[in-house]
Amino acid sequence: MSHLISRRAQSRIVNHFASDTLKGAPEGFKPHPKPLHLDYGTPNEGFFPIKSIHVTVKQKPFEDQEPESVSESAKGKPVVIENRAADPSLIDIATGLQYSDVPGIPQLHKFTKDIIVRAHPPKYNDWETTVSCGAGEGLNKAIDVFLDEGDVVLLEEFTYTPILQAIQNAGAFPVPVRLDLEISSGNIDGIDFQYLSNLLDNWDELKPEFKGRKPKAFYTIASGQNPTGLTQSLNFRKKIYALAEKHDFVIIEDDPYGYLTLPPYKESELKTGPPLLELEDYLQNHLTPSVLVGHKKVIETIVTYSSLVTRFPSGTSQILVNNVIEQNFGGVDGWLGWILKLRSVYARRRNVLLFHLYESNAYKERYFDLIDPRAGMFVSVLVKFPKGTDVSEKLTLLQWKFRAYGVGVVSGLKMAVDPNFSLERGAFFRLTFAPAETDEEITEAAFRFTSAVNEFFQKGLQF
Amino acid sequence: MSHLISRRAQSRIVNHFASDTLKGAPEGFKPHPKPLHLDYGTPNEGFFPIKSIHVTVKQKPFEDQEPESVSESAKGKPVVIENRAADPSLIDIATGLQYSDVPGIPQLHKFTKDIIVRAHPPKYNDWETTVSCGAGEGLNKAIDVFLDEGDVVLLEEFTYTPILQAIQNAGAFPVPVRLDLEISSGNIDGIDFQYLSNLLDNWDELKPEFKGRKPKAFYTIASGQNPTGLTQSLNFRKKIYALAEKHDFVIIEDDPYGYLTLPPYKESELKTGPPLLELEDYLQNHLTPSVLVGHKKVIETIVTYSSLVTRFPSGTSQILVNNVIEQNFGGVDGWLGWILKLRSVYARRRNVLLFHLYESNAYKERYFDLIDPRAGMFVSVLVKFPKGTDVSEKLTLLQWKFRAYGVGVVSGLKMAVDPNFSLERGAFFRLTFAPAETDEEITEAAFRFTSAVNEFFQKGLQF
Repeated sequence: MSHLISRRAQSRIVNHFASDTLKGAPEGFKPHPKPLHLDYGTPNEGFFPIKSIHVTVKQKPFEDQEPESVSESAKGKPVVIENRAADPSLIDIATGLQYSDVPGIPQLHKFTKDIIVRAHPPKYNDWETTVSCGAGEGLNKAIDVFLDEGDVVLLEEFTYTPILQAIQNAGAFPVPVRLDLEISSGNIDGIDFQYLSNLLDNWDELKPEFKGRKPKAFYTIASGQNPTGLTQSLNFRKKIYALAEKHDFVIIEDDPYGYLTLPPYKESELKTGPPLLELEDYLQNHLTPSVLVGHKKVIETIVTYSSLVTRFPSGTSQILVNNVIEQNFGGVDGWLGWILKLRSVYARRRNVLLFHLYESNAYKERYFDLIDPRAGMFVSVLVKFPKGTDVSEKLTLLQWKFRAYGVGVVSGLKMAVDPNFSLERGAFFRLTFAPAETDEEITEAAFRFTSAVNEFFQKGLQF
Repeated sequence: MSHLISRRAQSRIVNHFASDTLKGAPEGFKPHPKPLHLDYGTPNEGFFPIKSIHVTVKQKPFEDQEPESVSESAKGKPVVIENRAADPSLIDIATGLQYSDVPGIPQLHKFTKDIIVRAHPPKYNDWETTVSCGAGEGLNKAIDVFLDEGDVVLLEEFTYTPILQAIQNAGAFPVPVRLDLEISSGNIDGIDFQYLSNLLDNWDELKPEFKGRKPKAFYTIASGQNPTGLTQSLNFRKKIYALAEKHDFVIIEDDPYGYLTLPPYKESELKTGPPLLELEDYLQNHLTPSVLVGHKKVIETIVTYSSLVTRFPSGTSQILVNNVIEQNFGGVDGWLGWILKLRSVYARRRNVLLFHLYESNAYKERYFDLIDPRAGMFVSVLVKFPKGTDVSEKLTLLQWKFRAYGVGVVSGLKMAVDPNFSLERGAFFRLTFAPAETDEEITEAAFRFTSAVNEFFQKGLQF
């Protein structure tokens, strides 16, 4: 593993002036039983202006938008954050607003390990976690830890493009990997495995500009991929892993949606969403490791970087996340219970969106196909232009149609690593049901979307 | 200014797939009056588990450690954070827990400008601010924005050494500037101006290893310097500024203590601290710009970096900081009022520490001298070793004495940029009164400290 860590990251040394060892003591030295500190520049918590924080927590998503009042028993346990907490699983104000440990305040750091052990224990022992300042921030560190200037990284050809800025910042080069979005082909894993395997086997010939520089990493969003919504099967992941072993690259798995697995679309679950899963059933079908977790050596190197670049993540955020989970939800299983409820609302919203897409004239006329996602919050609508269409031009024009109809969607081509490379496969739009206020809003947005497509096609692909 | 920005920082480009323009619309296009969004990947706030947050705020530091109960009228205004706030100066949950603006959530971003205008308005118009993820994180960005690989940066020879890791990470080289700690010389500004001026005038001869690479930046802690506690006078700052203009370098001012100005030590204010200053009197004697503020072009470049490396700072932190200030303290002046109270407790604690140092036998025997700080939380104790002493060896031994007596202090030499360069001037210890629980603890710690010095000297500098 060590040989894949960037030279930049390996060269960093952390040495704090306040660190101290008891090596080299003179003869007769006895440590004092109760030393006092004039050394640490950590203001006493008496100087912190906040005395206590009370948090009220929903027991289910959108609870406060429901007309009926929630009964007392259904209300959550109050979350009370005091200056000093008696319960060792809670982070108190004196700890949370103070300088703290770079990998995370111990209570929350422990939680990140506990949930991984519960949800998807790694099959090796030398793993570690670190709390980041947020998903994007953590990703930048994952890029930094592996990629040196001139290194090459593979990505799904359509992806979360802000990652490209982190790659550019590391001086590395992104190389897109073909996706197969023809769902009729039966490939539901997204990545065109043949293409990838062949590319790696014949790297120097196929990528002469990167001759002798085979990829050091593969950045992938394996569940509910952004933007396509595709999810790799367990079997497919194993095949990618085997490629990584053969060609000696690391897999950087970005996993914002892995916990939000979705059952297949069912029209009958339009109003209610799918029934709540039992936790054990959910966990059995739960695939994904999280970006927080990795080989110990990698995480240690990230923590070294953190200690110079960001220090510890926001204490108030850590207090809130940890204590809401511990005090209100009761720890790992309670938190997973909340995720199951989230997941159910996501599935219902997905059903609403898909129902209105499927019911539309545009769909019945086969102007588009779509991908029913197995995780996450994105639905890809694949526009079926006639052969020979100037896809780039027509996508732009269709986007204007959507604007005129009053519905915002993201063009697939806009999320391409290299639009020229991906032109043939870029004729899709990313739709998400996550930001809408209500199911009615999703219905109306779907209506606008399908009406725009319909009119566009019926006018002969003209505005 | 632009020519001093690093090539690395200048080369960054931010381009988000969700950014959109209305250029190039086809004929007949009319924007929709009320577009719906299937594009933004921003989950609706109904999915956020937090319903509301109530914060109780102290009206003065250490309030909750006082025996008498606080009267109702003295209690602070309740801080209530709801899903949607009616008051536009408050950040609500729907905004604060959502993706937000990289330079800071608008309300808090505005506050950072308001307090700068109130406390020390810059004398030019093209200034801007950005909220960082914390002081250390902001500093790393300030280093990144100016220093390329191979660049040189000046620092006070004793300084906040974690900055060296950020400098190393940028591939730049730190060059220490001599400080004058002989307070009997009457120089209270710290920096040896003659040395610095001469160094810059004769750079190529004096620093042949950096020939042709004059410093691009000077990193300085101008108020309550860490570790020395020294504060540059306004006049001295102007002299440094003139040097910067002459030799074309930027001043990176790190200002964690600038608001915590301290009056001179007064034995009569041992129990009470100095009387609370009137706000206007305080502001008139207030020197320092803050690390948050800088030339617009610099801040824009930092924000570009932020948008790839950290994104926006923690939303929960921004909610708490902004709303506690707005709702409880009533904005800029109320917040400065809190700082005045902090300052008063700091001054009292400083008085307690100095009183017990001055009263000690070790001081009366002239085993040490000390610097009474005009700002911040550090007191330097300058150990007066006889001429010819092996300072490095004796400092280490004396540190063991402190450990045996049960008092932690930081050796000046440990905070040197280059211990060899600073050996002659490194015979001091940094003491801080900030972390202690009580005045009694400071008293006891001072007693242990002076007793250790006393015994060490009386034993002929032996353990």
